[in-house]
Amino acid sequence: MSTYTNTTSAFSTAQDEAEIRRLIEAWSAAVSARDLDGIAANYQPDTLLFDAIPPYKTIGRDAIRQAWANCLPFFPEQFRLERRDLTIQVAGDTAFAHFLIHFLPVPADDPCGQTWMRVTSGFRRIQGAWKVLHEHVSVPFNPMNSQVWFIRNPDVVDIPDYGNACT
Amino acid sequence: MSTYTNTTSAFSTAQDEAEIRRLIEAWSAAVSARDLDGIAANYQPDTLLFDAIPPYKTIGRDAIRQAWANCLPFFPEQFRLERRDLTIQVAGDTAFAHFLIHFLPVPADDPCGQTWMRVTSGFRRIQGAWKVLHEHVSVPFNPMNSQVWFIRNPDVVDIPDYGNACT
Repeated sequence: MSTYTNTTSAFSTAQDEAEIRRLIEAWSAAVSARDLDGIAANYQPDTLLFDAIPPYKTIGRDAIRQAWANCLPFFPEQFRLERRDLTIQVAGDTAFAHFLIHFLPVPADDPCGQTWMRVTSGFRRIQGAWKVLHEHVSVPFNPMNSQVWFIRNPDVVDIPDYGNACT
Repeated sequence: MSTYTNTTSAFSTAQDEAEIRRLIEAWSAAVSARDLDGIAANYQPDTLLFDAIPPYKTIGRDAIRQAWANCLPFFPEQFRLERRDLTIQVAGDTAFAHFLIHFLPVPADDPCGQTWMRVTSGFRRIQGAWKVLHEHVSVPFNPMNSQVWFIRNPDVVDIPDYGNACT
């Protein structure tokens, strides 16, 4: 729960936060179940996705659904999505959330499970229902060698050897 | 301007959007001017940054300011920050925005200018003023070779050769 006080007392913050949390949980469950309609359920025709892998942007529910349809066959037969560090900020008709996700594959050493990813979602209440207008998923990269910097354990906040740069 | 209708007509959406836009422009100007206090002005003690380079998270205004203090000496003497594709969603006391940024260095071939970056910001109105509670900056990576996938021209939405995977 946020510790910030709202300007307008009319915001039903607790209920909105619970609804957004349910929406995020439903999305995670849909990914784990390879349920394309469930994955795409809360995107809009103009939702903008900045995904962890190229293309750098994907626009619209249909295109995002298609990206998942193309990728899911290359996931191992069994996997589920793990989530942690969820924070939701909502006070009004726009909201955002951030959290970390991780694929838990079987077998455990499948490449899809090699990193946690950072996720930021932007929400809007449209005709009474919360919808996802924006999603940003990423892993940082090491500027010293242009390689992705996997987040193997979110409790370890490590950095590359930057030498004299950016330490 | 957003095309969505607000539930609560009391939201002064146009004014809020203008204020958030000014805040983003002030931050860009502060980066270009190497003005650390300006860069950090609108972060909070609990602001969470997911930056493009490790560490994967940085928490709090002081730590974010320090990260910039460490990095700025390694930028070329002259550069400025370019921005495009800004969208702001605000209706209430929480809001989010997304846009692309790019360093324009002198000389133009300095490595800091080699990619555009995707930015998502989460805002909250605190004691009447908009503050940045969250920032997510990233470039995608190519899962085929774990290399960063630079966004050299945002008008070109290209993808790696995925072979049989994720195309």
